[in-house]
Amino acid sequence: MNTLVMKFGGSSVSTTDKIKDVAELILHRKSAGHKVVVVVSAMGDTTDNLLFLANRLAKKPYEKELDMLLSSGEIVSASLLAMHLIDLGHPAQSFTGFQAGFKTRGQHLSSQIETIDPHRILESLNLDKIVIVAGFQGMNAEGEITTLGRGGSDTSAVALAAKLKAKCEIYTDVAGIYTVDPRIRPYAKKLSQVTYEEAVEMANLGAKIIAARSVELASKYQVPLYVALNTGEVEGTYINNEQENSMIENMEEIRLTNISKIDDVLLVNLEKLEKIDEKVTKCFLALANANINIDILNQILLKDNHSAVSFTANKSDKAGIIEILNELNFSYKIKEDLTKVSIIGSAMRHQAGVAAEAFRVFVDQNIPYYMISTSDISISYVVDTANTKQIVNALADKFNL
Amino acid sequence: MNTLVMKFGGSSVSTTDKIKDVAELILHRKSAGHKVVVVVSAMGDTTDNLLFLANRLAKKPYEKELDMLLSSGEIVSASLLAMHLIDLGHPAQSFTGFQAGFKTRGQHLSSQIETIDPHRILESLNLDKIVIVAGFQGMNAEGEITTLGRGGSDTSAVALAAKLKAKCEIYTDVAGIYTVDPRIRPYAKKLSQVTYEEAVEMANLGAKIIAARSVELASKYQVPLYVALNTGEVEGTYINNEQENSMIENMEEIRLTNISKIDDVLLVNLEKLEKIDEKVTKCFLALANANINIDILNQILLKDNHSAVSFTANKSDKAGIIEILNELNFSYKIKEDLTKVSIIGSAMRHQAGVAAEAFRVFVDQNIPYYMISTSDISISYVVDTANTKQIVNALADKFNL
Repeated sequence: MNTLVMKFGGSSVSTTDKIKDVAELILHRKSAGHKVVVVVSAMGDTTDNLLFLANRLAKKPYEKELDMLLSSGEIVSASLLAMHLIDLGHPAQSFTGFQAGFKTRGQHLSSQIETIDPHRILESLNLDKIVIVAGFQGMNAEGEITTLGRGGSDTSAVALAAKLKAKCEIYTDVAGIYTVDPRIRPYAKKLSQVTYEEAVEMANLGAKIIAARSVELASKYQVPLYVALNTGEVEGTYINNEQENSMIENMEEIRLTNISKIDDVLLVNLEKLEKIDEKVTKCFLALANANINIDILNQILLKDNHSAVSFTANKSDKAGIIEILNELNFSYKIKEDLTKVSIIGSAMRHQAGVAAEAFRVFVDQNIPYYMISTSDISISYVVDTANTKQIVNALADKFNL
Repeated sequence: MNTLVMKFGGSSVSTTDKIKDVAELILHRKSAGHKVVVVVSAMGDTTDNLLFLANRLAKKPYEKELDMLLSSGEIVSASLLAMHLIDLGHPAQSFTGFQAGFKTRGQHLSSQIETIDPHRILESLNLDKIVIVAGFQGMNAEGEITTLGRGGSDTSAVALAAKLKAKCEIYTDVAGIYTVDPRIRPYAKKLSQVTYEEAVEMANLGAKIIAARSVELASKYQVPLYVALNTGEVEGTYINNEQENSMIENMEEIRLTNISKIDDVLLVNLEKLEKIDEKVTKCFLALANANINIDILNQILLKDNHSAVSFTANKSDKAGIIEILNELNFSYKIKEDLTKVSIIGSAMRHQAGVAAEAFRVFVDQNIPYYMISTSDISISYVVDTANTKQIVNALADKFNL
C-alpha cells in the first residue's frame, strides 16, 4: 500500500466547515488505497491573532517564547481534524511536531528539520489510522519547541514524505500552478507538470503556490509533488523531474512555463561614484547588518571614469536604506511603485532568443523597464507597477502562456 | 531562598492587560526574595471556544483528541506571560506540562499526576529565571498529552509545590475565602485562615474558590496554601493545618467557618416500594452506568412494611433519570428548583447543638427543608432555591458568619 502525505494550509482549515471538506478529501484519497498522513497548518488567522497578542505584551517578543506560542495553532487544527475523522468512524490520531518525531536545529522562528523519527507515525499507520501531524514545528536537542518559519508546513510535509518514501500532495485554494497568476490573466493556462527547478524559480520570483525551500527539499529527495485545489475537484499540477511539459498541448509553441511578479519593489540609483568606490562596499555591509535584503544589483562603469550602481529592495526597507545612504553621504535617487516581472522556463536553457523576443514585446507595448536580471531559466524585468497587467498579458500572448 | 508556586486561573489572564497585572504581582513576589514558579490556566474563554469548535466537528469528541486540543490553551497563556516578563527585563521561560515534567496516568480528560520530574524547572530556577508552567496538562506513559480535568491547574500548582517543597499561592478574582459567598451576603466576613479539612468540605459543598482535589493534595503533602485576589492588593486566606481560626476576632462566638450552596438540585422520591426492593438496586446500578451521580440518599422504612427512597441529583441529569425510572416502572415524584445549603466548620466536631440551633433558624424563618445530610464537620439542607438568600443570611446571622 502506498503512503501519501497530504498537506493543507491555513486557508483550507480556516472554519469547521472547511475542516469537514478536508476530511472528505482525505477519506476519498484513503479509499483509493493509500496510507494517509496529513500535515496541517494553523486555522486561518490564528497565527496573526497570536502575533497580535504577543505584540501587545512585548516590544520585541522573545523568539523562543514566540515559537512556543505559535506552535499551539497547529495543535488545534490537527486535533480538530482528527476528532472529526474519528466521529465519521475512521480511526485517526493527531500528533504535535515533537510527537511526530520532528527534530530541529538552528534558530527559533526559522529552524531546520534535522531528522524525523517516524516510529510513532508508522505505528499508527500500521493500525490503519489516519495520521494528522501539526505542521510548521518540531523540537530541538534542548527539548524546546521550535517553528520552521516561512513555508514551514510545506517543508514539514515534504520532509515527512521523503522519510516515508511517500508522494506528497499540497492542497491550497488555487487549483495548481498557472502560466500566469489568474488574478492578472483570468484565461491563464494551468500547467499539468513543471520541473522542480522551474517551481523553485517561480517561487523565488513571486509565485505564491509553494515555498522554494519545500520544492528544493522535494528535489533533493526526489519526492513527487502534486499541487491542487483543496476541494480535490479539479486536476492540479505535478512537480517532478520530467524535463518536458509533456502534457501540455501545442508542444512546439511552448517555450516558457510561467510569468510571475513581485510588487513593492524599490529601485535605488547611487550616482557620482568613483570607479572603485569604498563607500559602495560600506553601504552594502551596512545594509546587510541592518537585515535589509537587496535583490538585483547592477554596476555600470561610465565613460568619465566614474561609475553608477543600481539595486532593488523591498519598499518596507525604504526608511532604513535612506538612513544608511545619508550617513554615507551618497548622492542618490529612489524610484518607487515598481514591480519585478519574471518569465520562467527550463526550456529557456536550450532556446536562444527569448530575451530578444521579450525585448520586442516591451518595445511594441511602449513600456519602459528599469533593470533586467537573468538566470539560467528566467529573465526578470523591473517595470512600473501601473504597467504590470499590460506587460504580463503581452508577454503571455507572445509566449502562448 | 524559598521557592514559591503562584497559580493564576483563566479569568486572571483573560486579556493582555490582565496578563500585565499578573506579571507585576509576580515581580513583586520575586523581589521579596522568592524563587518563583507560575502555573497558568488558559486565557478566559479559550477552553469554551475550543470546545465549541470540537462540538461542531464531532457529536462526541474523542477524548484523546480533546486533550490534545485543550492543552493548546495553557501553552498560549504561558508563553505570552513569559514573553512579557522577558520584555520587562526579567529572564523567564515557559514550559508545556510535558516539558515541566508532569507525568500522568489514567483516563483522558481526567488524568492524575503520577509524578513530576522537575529537573528542567530546577535548572531554570538556578539560572534565576521565572518559570511559567502550562497548568492542567501532562503526558502519559504512551507519550500522549492528557489533561487533569476539573480544577486541573490548581492541582498542577499544588503538586508542583509539593515536589519543590514550596508554598503555593492560588490567585483568583475573589479576595480569599469568605464565611458566605459575598454575592449572597455582601457583608460576609473574609476568613484569614481555614484548615485543609474545612476547605475540602466547602469545595465539596459548593464553594468555588479552590477544588477539593487540590486541597486534599495540599493536605497530603502539607503544602501551605494561600488564596488571594489576583491584584495582590488585599490579604487573602491561608489554608493549612492549624486547628483554630486564630486570626478571627471574637473567637468565643465563632463556631462555624462557612456557608456554601449548590443550586440546580433535583429531588427524586421513589414511592410504594417493598421493604427490600430489588428495583432500587437495579435503579442505582442503571444510574451509575449512565454516569449519573446521586448526591444525598435517604431510605425510610414505613410502618406498613413498605419503604420510601429519596435522592438528590443534578438538574442536568433529569431526562436520564426519568428514562431509567420509567424503564423500571417506578412510581415517583420529582421536585425541582432546589438548592443545597451547607454550614461548615471543623469546630462542629466539638460543639454539640449546631444542628439543633440550625433547625431553630428554619422554624423561625418558616422555611421548609426537604432533606438533611450531615458529615463530621458539615450539615446540608435541601431547600427551595427561592428561599436560599433568606435562609443563608439567617443562618449566617445566627452563627455570626
